Amino acid sequence: MSTHSIKRVAIIGLGLLGGSVGLAIRDRAFDMETTGFDLDPDVRVKAKERMLVGTVCETAEEALAGVDLVVLCIPVGAMAAAVQSFADAVPAGAIISDVGSSKQSVLTHLQSALPDHTIIPAHPVAGTEESGPDAGFSSLFTNRWCILTPPEGTDPQALAALELFWTRLGAKTEIMDAQHHDLVLAVTSHIPHLIAFTIVGTASDLEDVTRSEVIKYSAGGFRDFTRIAASDPTMWRDVFLENKGAVLEMLGRFTEDLTALQRAIRSGDGDSLFELFERTRTIRRSIIEQGQDDAAPDFGRDH
Amino acid sequence: MSTHSIKRVAIIGLGLLGGSVGLAIRDRAFDMETTGFDLDPDVRVKAKERMLVGTVCETAEEALAGVDLVVLCIPVGAMAAAVQSFADAVPAGAIISDVGSSKQSVLTHLQSALPDHTIIPAHPVAGTEESGPDAGFSSLFTNRWCILTPPEGTDPQALAALELFWTRLGAKTEIMDAQHHDLVLAVTSHIPHLIAFTIVGTASDLEDVTRSEVIKYSAGGFRDFTRIAASDPTMWRDVFLENKGAVLEMLGRFTEDLTALQRAIRSGDGDSLFELFERTRTIRRSIIEQGQDDAAPDFGRDH
Repeated sequence: MSTHSIKRVAIIGLGLLGGSVGLAIRDRAFDMETTGFDLDPDVRVKAKERMLVGTVCETAEEALAGVDLVVLCIPVGAMAAAVQSFADAVPAGAIISDVGSSKQSVLTHLQSALPDHTIIPAHPVAGTEESGPDAGFSSLFTNRWCILTPPEGTDPQALAALELFWTRLGAKTEIMDAQHHDLVLAVTSHIPHLIAFTIVGTASDLEDVTRSEVIKYSAGGFRDFTRIAASDPTMWRDVFLENKGAVLEMLGRFTEDLTALQRAIRSGDGDSLFELFERTRTIRRSIIEQGQDDAAPDFGRDH
Repeated sequence: MSTHSIKRVAIIGLGLLGGSVGLAIRDRAFDMETTGFDLDPDVRVKAKERMLVGTVCETAEEALAGVDLVVLCIPVGAMAAAVQSFADAVPAGAIISDVGSSKQSVLTHLQSALPDHTIIPAHPVAGTEESGPDAGFSSLFTNRWCILTPPEGTDPQALAALELFWTRLGAKTEIMDAQHHDLVLAVTSHIPHLIAFTIVGTASDLEDVTRSEVIKYSAGGFRDFTRIAASDPTMWRDVFLENKGAVLEMLGRFTEDLTALQRAIRSGDGDSLFELFERTRTIRRSIIEQGQDDAAPDFGRDH
């Protein structure tokens, strides 16, 4: 076991997540130094303006020099190629981590590109529907869970150092194996997004209901789904493709349940509907009690 | 054509909607008098405490005496029996309206119970996930659309009076036929609710993912759905049963689209996914531009 102390952090990808990691370090961990890189030159310019990291570098190699931790904040589908391109520049003792929404595929990609490094994939369960270098803010991780999925045999000191890192950024940490992570997040994040993208698409394509009507009467519930369906297209395409197995599994269960409800409606079985709707009510209460959502009605929207 | 001036209003049902109508009148239409009734004695007590209406009556008949407008704020499945029970007490010249989420069935119920009255069903597209006499507030209808579905041959003066009534309560009005209303609301409200109830049910019933995990990681998107799925069970059971035709029709289209996405994921067709996710992004912008949702990221949740 080696001693890991995270003092210098490279953030690769300076969008919503990368920017928020940088800003959270600046506001909460004064002793750390940050470097950052983004493939897009416009993003690098914005990142300098907003001071998302201490030094915005013109190459990944430059950003990686001498760091203790690399946090990959790029779409999960771009991970393999990115890491291969700068693998030689990653310091030998550095911990390699990320913030991606699927973890089994990320682990495989990182292990194959950096077989001799300490790799600990991570997923802070936090975000908004916005994206890009203007979207990040330093309190994004406050009171949110960050799931770490260390492969078997991970150096406990490195794991402890990464847990401390996320705790200092305001998050609470949890350890899980990558496969279980992918199943849990399929149901708490990926399927909700898939359903939201679908219903917004369905509503946009109707001929007998106009787009203008859909927008005007969206306060009936639809508008909630449009928020999620405004999320970053590249990120979400990659999540569904990289977590295909768990997503299809959970989608199958959702579809079975939806078919049962459809049958209850068709046959006029009000008791089954009522029984389900009573049950689903209670879970909201638990989420609010555990500080995972606002208690105010209608998300505290201004009425 | 007769002249209709709405000065006295009876509100039948004093939950979220009935209470909000009463409070909106109190705050915005000082010249109107309100009476109210609820079948539940506890609700009547609460309604008195909160002064939801000018006079909380012990019977519907008492509340109806001498009014110009009756607003039924009860679940759509309870409408027929309620109106039959007090039909004889409805003043001859009064306009009968409601706030229900389905309109064809309401129109049929009201016409059969009160064949000689002026019946104009209405649906303010507004609400929260809360219910009961504590949930209402006077600004619920501000800047929201209220859809009126007058049957053919409706007295234009009565229609104008009801439009003015809703405008005074802060809403914007739109005239539509009941059948079209039911189709539009199936997609902007009923299917979003049905999907939310379903996914929250699916997540609660899993064996390989615990309820505690679902709650902890709900910030990934799931928590948004739990808000809608906390809505009033009786109200929603009735909506699905009373608007069965349009709900099943729209559910069919949603399911087709979901199946197409499922196939795209299974076959690794990232381009189709990306193309849809790009399209669904734009509708959010229109909803915000038209004042139908908050522009702040994440519904303006406190981070």
